[in-house]
Formats: sequence, structure tokens, C-alpha cells
Amino acid sequence: MKLAELDTPTLILDRRRLQANIARISARAHDLGVDLRPHMKTAKCAEVARLATAGHSGGITVSTLKEAEYFAEHGFNDIAYAVGIAPAKLARVAALHTRGARVSVVTDNIDVAREIGVRARALDARFEVMIELDTGDGRAGIGVESDDLIAIGRALHEAPGVVLRGVLTHAGQTYQGKNIDEIAAVAEAERAGAVRAAERLRAAGLPCPVVSVGSTPAATHARNLGGVNELRPGVYVFQDVFQAEIGSCAMSDVAVSVLATVTGQHPERGEIVIDAGGLALSKDRSTAGAPRDVGYGLVLDSACGGSLPEMHVVRVSQEHGIVKAASGVLPFDRLKPGTRVRVLPNHACFTAAAYDGYHAIDDAAEDVVAFWPRVNGW
Amino acid sequence: MKLAELDTPTLILDRRRLQANIARISARAHDLGVDLRPHMKTAKCAEVARLATAGHSGGITVSTLKEAEYFAEHGFNDIAYAVGIAPAKLARVAALHTRGARVSVVTDNIDVAREIGVRARALDARFEVMIELDTGDGRAGIGVESDDLIAIGRALHEAPGVVLRGVLTHAGQTYQGKNIDEIAAVAEAERAGAVRAAERLRAAGLPCPVVSVGSTPAATHARNLGGVNELRPGVYVFQDVFQAEIGSCAMSDVAVSVLATVTGQHPERGEIVIDAGGLALSKDRSTAGAPRDVGYGLVLDSACGGSLPEMHVVRVSQEHGIVKAASGVLPFDRLKPGTRVRVLPNHACFTAAAYDGYHAIDDAAEDVVAFWPRVNGW
Repeated sequence: MKLAELDTPTLILDRRRLQANIARISARAHDLGVDLRPHMKTAKCAEVARLATAGHSGGITVSTLKEAEYFAEHGFNDIAYAVGIAPAKLARVAALHTRGARVSVVTDNIDVAREIGVRARALDARFEVMIELDTGDGRAGIGVESDDLIAIGRALHEAPGVVLRGVLTHAGQTYQGKNIDEIAAVAEAERAGAVRAAERLRAAGLPCPVVSVGSTPAATHARNLGGVNELRPGVYVFQDVFQAEIGSCAMSDVAVSVLATVTGQHPERGEIVIDAGGLALSKDRSTAGAPRDVGYGLVLDSACGGSLPEMHVVRVSQEHGIVKAASGVLPFDRLKPGTRVRVLPNHACFTAAAYDGYHAIDDAAEDVVAFWPRVNGW
Repeated sequence: MKLAELDTPTLILDRRRLQANIARISARAHDLGVDLRPHMKTAKCAEVARLATAGHSGGITVSTLKEAEYFAEHGFNDIAYAVGIAPAKLARVAALHTRGARVSVVTDNIDVAREIGVRARALDARFEVMIELDTGDGRAGIGVESDDLIAIGRALHEAPGVVLRGVLTHAGQTYQGKNIDEIAAVAEAERAGAVRAAERLRAAGLPCPVVSVGSTPAATHARNLGGVNELRPGVYVFQDVFQAEIGSCAMSDVAVSVLATVTGQHPERGEIVIDAGGLALSKDRSTAGAPRDVGYGLVLDSACGGSLPEMHVVRVSQEHGIVKAASGVLPFDRLKPGTRVRVLPNHACFTAAAYDGYHAIDDAAEDVVAFWPRVNGW
């Protein structure tokens, strides 16, 4: 099948860019001396997971139990479910164990830690648990110096059927870094915090075999990961406009794009309309705070090239995207209705979630070489 | 099944609220003397469409061809596809015709109008087309007084295999109305513009049997629809926090909510964490401009009641929602990890799109009485 035969809007994955993105971070993990446990919340796709885990332990990270179940079905048996566990979900985790998949969970809460022990007994299960740390992101996790760290560690370690696997943190504030030095400094704070928490647990006589950190900017720019043994970046497999803007990649590394069709022209407003709106692109506005604000996406020609002036999706409604030139006037004669364009997403994780899968191509070639399904939902 | 047995996050539909919302707008359409052609872009669900079309012609509106195909499969044979047609999509429209569904399309572009004629001949098909008007929204559509109106009308009417069905407009600027009078004034401008365009077409000797307008605020507050014969509101079936904020409904009318679970507490920041993040709620920020900004959603107790202080989802990442009290302090002892809450969405169309379907309940009852699937994608 040819790209031109696909109905729009639809999601395109450039396989060569994907492979290059994966190779770059894989080499970083080797250089830094840590295992790569890629976060599959971005791709949610077994084919991508197979490429991303090559040359590493084979472990992956997921953000939902639906992902864990999907990847277990596709042969991935070492899974870290890295979003704070709600105790009622432990029955599904136990069911995965009986199917042969090892699925660890995380918490930052003493009540949950105790409840995991209760459920392990009730379900006759064995749960591996990581303690989530807050190393500056302010989303979830306990402070590295918190008294709760030892209390949670002890509650987990002493409960029959519970294994304290280690500590885990995500320094999401790397996304706020204004340059590579700032991102490297956040990555160092993340590393130092995670290592300090591990040392505190060990000093209290508790095990802490795994020290896990990660985000794509930190994986890209961390200068040393001494004391860490696991890295969990996610969006690097695809990259996106926001990651390019904060220096995680070049814009030409962005591997996913939405294929869209021009449906109308409004020269009096300097606008065209495309059939990719807020559902097809997502309403993520990550680039609102970036050096270059592309609205809801960066619009390129149908080969993802630069033959057109820079264009942004400036407004969306559910199925309409309104496109303007970043400066100057759109070439309306080259953007007639029916013309295909490609939109690079602000945030690949959110855009990809609107689709059932990826039409894979190689570079700017017109041939769709595969359709790779993905899993959505919970 | 009980609500308490559902895994979270998941989507709940209160059937009694749905039915009341439908009854209210259905009565409005009868009072205004127009046919109701509900826009199914919100619900994308055959069960909801059956309720919403009861007592009217049975026609529906859709925003994607995937919806059109889904509803045709479920027995809906009079469908208006109300997003500007990309000519390459006409083959799918023709395929629906051969399966017995009547699917009209819209355009605002003279090149597309001519191409529809070309494709009708090439596909040996007959296309019903509406001309999209801009009555102030500035998204798509041509101006009511535009020369193109007559040119497009003539191109369509004179092409063999093409039927000019009429004019269609969506005054999306009702969403900016600051009070009921302002919304009623926008609805009147929408009505007057659509009627004026129809008169211009008829004066040029062209047919214009259908004059179609609609949005939920306009359907709620329009004072007269003289000259109009079709109304296409969508979100009214579910309503949402934004619609309540702009006066389309009461907050207690909102029929969809996301069931979520508390996974962590951060009293030092005055925050709890729930397992409904940016994918489960959507990143829509409609209420950013509303009198009350609820962030990414309004958090209520598990029965969708007001037993807790007002809480908002103030930040989201992919699977985390960060909840704060609107003022004062959260009752942390009543929001322990494992506690269920319900989140009313900013924008029901976007939140519902993250799910495969609806768990239907009746009022605050604990019984899940049905699972109603929905269609997503393109």
C-alpha cells in the first residue's frame, strides 16, 4: 500500500527514525553502565518494544495494567508498572504472575504498602514493589529524606509475600530545563536522590537491589549514573516537537506524524483547514512554554520535508485543525483542498493514543511497509 | 455488576441524566418547530443515538466516516457528515450509499464542489451536498454574502449525480457567550445568516431545501428559528463542566464522569493523586476561560455527590491526576488511597473519546445496568 492510499487522519511511523532514536538511547544506556527498561507508555506496541529492548535485559516499563497484559501476551515477562498502585488492581497483577509474567508495582504511601501485604496473603500472591521517590518533580513519590521511606521499606520487606525491589523516580522537571546544562543538573539531582534513598534503606538493614531513574531528557543528557542500575525513558522512541525544542533531539528525528488532508482555504484569514483536529492531534499544548510554540503541531509537506514555509496548527476543534504560516503568507496554490500534509505532534504519547496503530514507512518512501497495532485504554 | 467492582479509570454514564438532557433539547426542537438531527460526535454510541432521535426524523449528524459506517451498521440511514469533505473520502461515502445509507457531505470550497461532480461520475454515485457557512465562528464555511456561495451552489446543482441539499452552519462562538442574552444573540445571528444564504441561493434559481444550524448553547437559548428546519447540537446529551459554566445546564445535569481511585497523598502540598490523568480525562482546558476554572475536571465523591469540598484536577501527566481543594484543605482522612472519586469532565466529547464505551448506571445507584460500546477513530 502507498501512503497516498491511506485515509486521513492517520498515524505514520518512520521506521528508520525510530531505529535511530532507539540506537542512540541504547548506546547511552551502555555508555552509562545501566540497564535500559524502556517505558512503553509512548508506543504501546510490541514491535517497538522488541526493537527498544534489543541488547538489554528485555525488561520494560508500562503505565497501565492493560499495557502489562498486552505485553505479557506478546512475550514480555519482566514488566515494571510504574504508576502508583491502587490496591484493588493487585488482583490483576497476581493474574499476570500466574501467566508467567513478572510485574512489579510502585507506591509512595505507607497505607498502600501495608495493604499490599494484606492482599498478598489474601490472593496467595508474591508482589515485587518499588518505593517511588520525589526527586523534585512534585507529582508523586516521597522525599528522599522522608521518615516514611524507611517505614514503607520496612512494611514491605517484613510482609510475607512482598519483595522490596528498590527505589524508582522520574524527574519530570527535566522537561522544564532551559538548556543541556540545566537538564544535566536535574539528571544529577535525580541520580543523587535515588542513590541517597537506596543508601538510607540499606543502612536501615533493608534490601534495595534496584535503583531506577529516567526520562528522555535525562537519558539524553545525564553525565553519569553512578549507583543507578536502570533507566526508563519513554518518548525517545518517537520524539516530538517538544523534545526537539528542549534539545532531546533534532526536529528531523521525530518519527511519528499525523497524515492529514487540506479541506478548505480561508485566504482572508491567512488560514487553511485540515482534517486533523483536537482528537487526531490531541489537545496537548506542551510547546506553549517552549522557545517555539507550534500550537497543536508543526505542519510539513506530505514527505515530512521542508518544501513549505513553517506552518503551525493554531486552533483545533474536534475534527478541524486551523493552520497558519509561522510568519508571512501561506502558499495557497500549493495547499489546495485534497493536498496531503504531515503534522509533527507536540507530545507523541498523547497523539499516538488516538490511534489503533502505526502505518510504518521507511524514510520519505511512499510505501507503507507494515501496520503495527498498539494497545489503548485501561 | 457494581460500580465498586469496576477497574479505574473508567467512564460512567448516568442514564437518567442522559434521558433528561435528551428530553429537554428534544422539547426545545419541537417548540422551535425544527427537526432535531443530533450530532453523534459526542456519544458515538448507537444506544444514545436511539434515545436522542426518538420523536424526530431519525436523522443524525456525524464528524467522521468511521462514525457514519458504525451508525449505518446500527440501522441509522439518514446521516449528515458535517465536517468539510476531502474528495478522496467520497469513495467511502459511495460505499455507504450502496449499503442503503443516505450520507450527505459538506464543503465551503469551489474546487471541492467541482471535484465532487467529477467523483460522482467516476464512481457512478449520487452525492447530496450542503454548503457550509461561516456565521461568525471563523473556523470553516464561507461568508453568507460571499460570491462563492452562488458559484459553489451552481457548481453543485449543475453537476450530474450531485444534489444541493442546502446550507449548514455551526456558530461555535456561542461557546464564548458570557450570558444567556449573548448566546441568544449569537443564535439569532446564526439563524439569520443561514436563512439569508438560503434566500440568496433561491434567488439565484438554486434549490436550498435544508437550512441547518446548531450547537448546544444555541439549541438551549435560541428564541426563534424561523426559516431554519434542522438543529444539530451534540454535547447536550452528556453536558459537561464547561457547558454548565456557560449556562447550558446545571452541574447536576452532567451525565458522564470518570470513575477514579486515589493512589497517593501529599499533605505537604495539599494534594492527592488519582489514577485518572491526561489520557483518562483529556487535556482539554475549556474551563480555562470559564467563570470557574476546574483545571482538568471537577472531582466529586464516588456517588457524584457533594459530600466533599470542591476539588479540581489541577495538573495531569499521562496517568496521574493531581487534585487540590478549590479553597481550603482537603479532608485527607476521607481521601485515603483506594478511595473512589468521580471526575466531571471539562469537555465530554474529548474525555469520552479515550474510552471504548460507557458503564451505564441509574442516578447514584451502585448497579451497572449496561455497557454501551462507542466507536472511535477514523
